[in-house]
Amino acid sequence: MSQDIPQKPKYFLISDAVGSLVNDIFQSVSVQFPTVDFDVTNYPFIQHDDMLLPILKQAKIEQAGIVASFINKDLNQIAEDYCEMAGIFYLNVLDQLMDQIVHQTNVKPSGKPGIRHQLDDEYYKRIEALEFAVNNDDGQQPKRFIDADIVLLGISRTSKTPLSMYLANMGYKVANLPLVPESRIPDIIYEIERSKIIGLTNDVNVLNKFRRERMRSYGIEDASLYTNDARIEKELAYANKLYEELNCPVINVADRSIEETATLIIMFFNSTKSQEIQ
Amino acid sequence: MSQDIPQKPKYFLISDAVGSLVNDIFQSVSVQFPTVDFDVTNYPFIQHDDMLLPILKQAKIEQAGIVASFINKDLNQIAEDYCEMAGIFYLNVLDQLMDQIVHQTNVKPSGKPGIRHQLDDEYYKRIEALEFAVNNDDGQQPKRFIDADIVLLGISRTSKTPLSMYLANMGYKVANLPLVPESRIPDIIYEIERSKIIGLTNDVNVLNKFRRERMRSYGIEDASLYTNDARIEKELAYANKLYEELNCPVINVADRSIEETATLIIMFFNSTKSQEIQ
Repeated sequence: MSQDIPQKPKYFLISDAVGSLVNDIFQSVSVQFPTVDFDVTNYPFIQHDDMLLPILKQAKIEQAGIVASFINKDLNQIAEDYCEMAGIFYLNVLDQLMDQIVHQTNVKPSGKPGIRHQLDDEYYKRIEALEFAVNNDDGQQPKRFIDADIVLLGISRTSKTPLSMYLANMGYKVANLPLVPESRIPDIIYEIERSKIIGLTNDVNVLNKFRRERMRSYGIEDASLYTNDARIEKELAYANKLYEELNCPVINVADRSIEETATLIIMFFNSTKSQEIQ
Repeated sequence: MSQDIPQKPKYFLISDAVGSLVNDIFQSVSVQFPTVDFDVTNYPFIQHDDMLLPILKQAKIEQAGIVASFINKDLNQIAEDYCEMAGIFYLNVLDQLMDQIVHQTNVKPSGKPGIRHQLDDEYYKRIEALEFAVNNDDGQQPKRFIDADIVLLGISRTSKTPLSMYLANMGYKVANLPLVPESRIPDIIYEIERSKIIGLTNDVNVLNKFRRERMRSYGIEDASLYTNDARIEKELAYANKLYEELNCPVINVADRSIEETATLIIMFFNSTKSQEIQ
């Protein structure tokens, strides 16, 4: 019944805060429908009914479904009632879990939007971690590895920088050190706690493709030394030998996204921490 | 009926991918119950029933509720059936929206976990953006402002670095320039598109507190010039004059989290883009 499929299903994503959650949920679900072309509009920071009502009216006109993450109960109720009356889809992605916790604990939710991102100690820790990661990217200050929570080692194009920034955004102080066979490993690598070192590796063919693209972006079409397979293998062998020597966990980033590799790193980090506590 | 409240409501967060979504939802909801102490365990990358079943059994023993984000229908069904049988709470945070889209489009979801984080063009764009942001933090290469999507200006402690990294993680190429009354503004600031410049500002008292803390972290208790109110006001006046001259949007970061400020910046960025298209 393809004539029944709206050409572009419309969705309005509404939040009384930043709206990253409702965006992430929509993205997680919509990527499961690669043949469907969605028409999505974001409405963050909708904290009063006089901001909400015009959006609801527009949704009715455009027959757009609404996916919301209202913490504010009144706004949630207004939107829910309006959508029911207008015959459009409404989902508050927080509702079911919220209801369950109220039911389980008998405690009322505080109702303040945006407090997931509040300016608390954790927040300042994150800012500090991001600054640390920027200042300790690419082995800039090996001495400061001592202050890092996590030290990433890897040859060129093993995602050291994006991984460092991603982990820093979660509050971890991350330093990274590029491994080059011709450079000396700073002594500090042998002095810091082994448990905070992670070795990154990659497949030869992925590295080759990655490096060619980078050279091309620099306007260099033929960069034989840097992208040569034998050279890459030499670098990888050098890195693997060091990882063995340090006896550190090694993660191959070849088929993993930053999120996936970061999650593995945190799993290693937490397992070491819990071993230390035991 | 406080004796009915479990001392620590237990939750298992399970995902067949990274699990960031289910974590974010749980955090968004649980911060609304500041008096409740939750006991939360994460199980990412659960992609087979032989990994899932022991977790479900453990949940039954501990009477833990389960919040999941399974894309895989079979795993979702196994978990749902098990929890119903075991009498424990089960929520798949993707289900309602998934069902709605199937109902609306008659298209079947692809069922592949983790594709929100797949290694596509957008992914490489993000890595490139993160590297750009690291290399263009703190006004390192003003010439490259020409290649930036967004240029952030601000005096010390206006969140330039964390904002740059946060936006870069979303795929925007961000450069930032610290404003210091004694330094010359690079000419390029007057040459690049005005629409990509954002001015950051902050409240005097917040800046003072922030800077004192930073000095203290450096072991400097008395840093009178840097933290002096009159000095901060001079810097702010200097920045505000430049913002007026450039006629750029100005965001006060005083009471805003990184996520909130970043969302505002993207709103400015998108509004300029749509004006350009019109």
